[in-house]
Amino acid sequence: MAINTVVWNEFLHERENAEVKAIYPDGIHLAIARALSGDPNLAVSTATLDEPEHGLPQSRLDGTDVLLWWGHRAHGRVSDEVARRVQQRVAEGMGLIVLHSGHFSKIFKLLMGSPCSLRWREAGERERVWAINRSHPIAHGIGEHIELPNAEMYGEPFLVPEPLETVFISWFQGGEVFRSGLTYQRGAGRIFYFSPGHETYPIYHNAAIQQVLRNAVNWAYNPAPAWKDVSDGVNVPVARAREPLVATGPSVHRPGEAGLR
Amino acid sequence: MAINTVVWNEFLHERENAEVKAIYPDGIHLAIARALSGDPNLAVSTATLDEPEHGLPQSRLDGTDVLLWWGHRAHGRVSDEVARRVQQRVAEGMGLIVLHSGHFSKIFKLLMGSPCSLRWREAGERERVWAINRSHPIAHGIGEHIELPNAEMYGEPFLVPEPLETVFISWFQGGEVFRSGLTYQRGAGRIFYFSPGHETYPIYHNAAIQQVLRNAVNWAYNPAPAWKDVSDGVNVPVARAREPLVATGPSVHRPGEAGLR
Amino acid sequence: MAINTVVWNEFLHERENAEVKAIYPDGIHLAIARALSGDPNLAVSTATLDEPEHGLPQSRLDGTDVLLWWGHRAHGRVSDEVARRVQQRVAEGMGLIVLHSGHFSKIFKLLMGSPCSLRWREAGERERVWAINRSHPIAHGIGEHIELPNAEMYGEPFLVPEPLETVFISWFQGGEVFRSGLTYQRGAGRIFYFSPGHETYPIYHNAAIQQVLRNAVNWAYNPAPAWKDVSDGVNVPVARAREPLVATGPSVHRPGEAGLR
Amino acid sequence: MAINTVVWNEFLHERENAEVKAIYPDGIHLAIARALSGDPNLAVSTATLDEPEHGLPQSRLDGTDVLLWWGHRAHGRVSDEVARRVQQRVAEGMGLIVLHSGHFSKIFKLLMGSPCSLRWREAGERERVWAINRSHPIAHGIGEHIELPNAEMYGEPFLVPEPLETVFISWFQGGEVFRSGLTYQRGAGRIFYFSPGHETYPIYHNAAIQQVLRNAVNWAYNPAPAWKDVSDGVNVPVARAREPLVATGPSVHRPGEAGLR
Repeated sequence: MAINTVVWNEFLHERENAEVKAIYPDGIHLAIARALSGDPNLAVSTATLDEPEHGLPQSRLDGTDVLLWWGHRAHGRVSDEVARRVQQRVAEGMGLIVLHSGHFSKIFKLLMGSPCSLRWREAGERERVWAINRSHPIAHGIGEHIELPNAEMYGEPFLVPEPLETVFISWFQGGEVFRSGLTYQRGAGRIFYFSPGHETYPIYHNAAIQQVLRNAVNWAYNPAPAWKDVSDGVNVPVARAREPLVATGPSVHRPGEAGLR
Repeated sequence: MAINTVVWNEFLHERENAEVKAIYPDGIHLAIARALSGDPNLAVSTATLDEPEHGLPQSRLDGTDVLLWWGHRAHGRVSDEVARRVQQRVAEGMGLIVLHSGHFSKIFKLLMGSPCSLRWREAGERERVWAINRSHPIAHGIGEHIELPNAEMYGEPFLVPEPLETVFISWFQGGEVFRSGLTYQRGAGRIFYFSPGHETYPIYHNAAIQQVLRNAVNWAYNPAPAWKDVSDGVNVPVARAREPLVATGPSVHRPGEAGLR
Repeated sequence: MAINTVVWNEFLHERENAEVKAIYPDGIHLAIARALSGDPNLAVSTATLDEPEHGLPQSRLDGTDVLLWWGHRAHGRVSDEVARRVQQRVAEGMGLIVLHSGHFSKIFKLLMGSPCSLRWREAGERERVWAINRSHPIAHGIGEHIELPNAEMYGEPFLVPEPLETVFISWFQGGEVFRSGLTYQRGAGRIFYFSPGHETYPIYHNAAIQQVLRNAVNWAYNPAPAWKDVSDGVNVPVARAREPLVATGPSVHRPGEAGLR
Repeated sequence: MAINTVVWNEFLHERENAEVKAIYPDGIHLAIARALSGDPNLAVSTATLDEPEHGLPQSRLDGTDVLLWWGHRAHGRVSDEVARRVQQRVAEGMGLIVLHSGHFSKIFKLLMGSPCSLRWREAGERERVWAINRSHPIAHGIGEHIELPNAEMYGEPFLVPEPLETVFISWFQGGEVFRSGLTYQRGAGRIFYFSPGHETYPIYHNAAIQQVLRNAVNWAYNPAPAWKDVSDGVNVPVARAREPLVATGPSVHRPGEAGLR
């Protein structure tokens, strides 16, 4: 069964900046979608900021297995409602791949709970993305590292929580390091942050980067049914306790009342 | 130098529910503050929901080393601004101890990025809080477990991220288990969630629970200076790179421009 | 392509203890192997202590994708050489499922680096295995918990390193709790410890327990090629550095010398 | 009360290699001991390979709060008995700081359970040690990075388990990266691995490196009483269960028997 994969892009720089347009004439989302389509397990579509509800109405998200997110200059234009909706779907089990400048997106900051800040420099310098565990499913087929002749520098400290796994760490020509591939779990959903992908360099045309993206979608896919009530506090009444119980003592709840929150 | 410790309480049930008032006539915050004051390293004060800015103006938070948080029925009345302010202070290095029903507080959900939901039952049943690592600083002096004759049941699944450390797991008479003591890091700040503390039972009068709270404040205290710009993306221009660099390629930023976000 | 799965069992109690023999007349290994064979992706065989090299010569381990390990009273009879060989194969990428009393096996202690000690009681009491994340691949199809009417109690503290993920926590009738399902990574290999399985109760005949075992094998399988030199320190000479380098300063190594260890 | 700190060194290269001797005429252990002595909380002594029991008899280890370990070419000469003894003391609560080439020491490999292998090059190249969390107690006072003009390159992949915290990551002139500061927990003991420290460069004379070592000793110190029986499986008989129990079913143990292992 195909993994329903949606590539989201704010799609602004590609329309307004001639140099970016030259690299991604159809937008970063289509470049990534084409790369993912090389994997026959993936059913890929795209969504962009300017579509109604940013292309992510509830019904579409409910049918999405894995979402990729690229945004840079318009994080603030993403509605809080859509960001919360994506957060809830991740908790229910949808996979999420956050790309490059998406570190400052609403959805990534909501899911991390930390500032997600970093150091940066746009100088076209060399980046070498080292695989920390080359046998990790996300690093499959990459070898020991990926070399990017021109990249935006992202440097530590990167203010994210300790990850489940550090999959990649990048070396930069100008002297910095960066944890460029990190995994997280939130509820039933798996999250992968991957930092390469600045829009003024053809990074998503790099075959090894495309391989990481395909790997990451497969890794993030959770075939379990959506955990729809994952955010609900659930009362287990005395009569349904697993062991015989007699209630005792005072209560701040009335019988049958929903929990406080 | 004393650790400036603030105990925050919504302080509603103690004023409106006779049974809660009988247990905590001056409020849960004062009961906890008295327990903490047994530690001469701690300078303890309190804050409540109905004070201006909930008692947590920026100036006071800036001088707070560790904040304890108890809330239950009025999470929604805490202003978004104050919740964000607390989140920022945690990122800068303030310690945070979230208590019991605070699992559904705005601040805890903001920091965790996950639903923080759980199962619950108010039946006055027995809870046994097992120390997973009795040599952890937060478990100091507790022995192998704490026995609570009457407690509200909180049961798994508890929808929080994988913790740095699982310090306590609780057994409940009715058949459930719960990870009742968990540590996290967000930015420079340490977070401890501790689940015992329902308001209809005298749990904060229990000597072992009080010991855990004192331990937790000492553990959460970070003596490093506040990391004030922890949330800022910082540009490192080519001229200040650690290794000699010549910029190359196109740019989406103008020189000297602040980063996009 | 089938996942080559080997079920290892010391196979002593089933031959010497009439009550254990009544439950597992062909040995625990064959009961587990039959349960795994319900999954068409798995090619299952068995090995036991009394076979030459305990049934695990290098050539067989080299072709094993996932190994399950059940031992209890004869951990000391497993040769150090075979234990080290299994450890190396895990580092290369073989999955390992350690069952019940295997917590004190040579191989588990070697991989954990900690005492792996716990509390125990053999009283046939009730155990309830709670799924902490019911959407985790290992918990697939289990529901919220597994109820075992008779089990040996394993209780905290369980002296293992903090896991990557806590998948199950057990409640025991006698008042204890236990982290009964834990995941780890060592090198390229994934490890799952699963505590239910005492030999005097028919636990491996339980359908939900069998489902967990099938899930765990699929989860632990790493399709990456074996990382054969995973344990070698690798010298990267100046001439093969990724960036131009001129060696400077004194050396404790002669050119071309293998690293010290 | 002072933290009893022992600096262990194999002390071979300083006696046999003129260039190493010129940098550390009294041995690396004494250079480190002097650096630690700048902290009035620490009571520092040393031990070396050639002393009886390598200077680490049981009685001395029992009184040691934190042990630092430097070894390189004679890991194999450390007796298995002493390595196991140190491992047990870590489980009981002793802190351990493993330095540089100690990544391949018996004690570190025992505690990690993984190969601990890495890439290396001895070319005197530049290393920049970046603080991932500059507010971590081990990074206190360091600032954003430490610059070492000449260092041995240690490069990823570094085959260790996922750490509790990544404190430092190093950049190397030749193009590699390395997780140079990592924390772990084993039983009651805290472990810090810190990679800088090659013997042909004066790295332990660097003030920032010395600061990290002092910080690390304070961080690793666990004031809890030694957990002497941390490695024992403990039987909890039915009569001492926390909840009333009646034993049922067959048993492989006789009453009062010690557990199998």
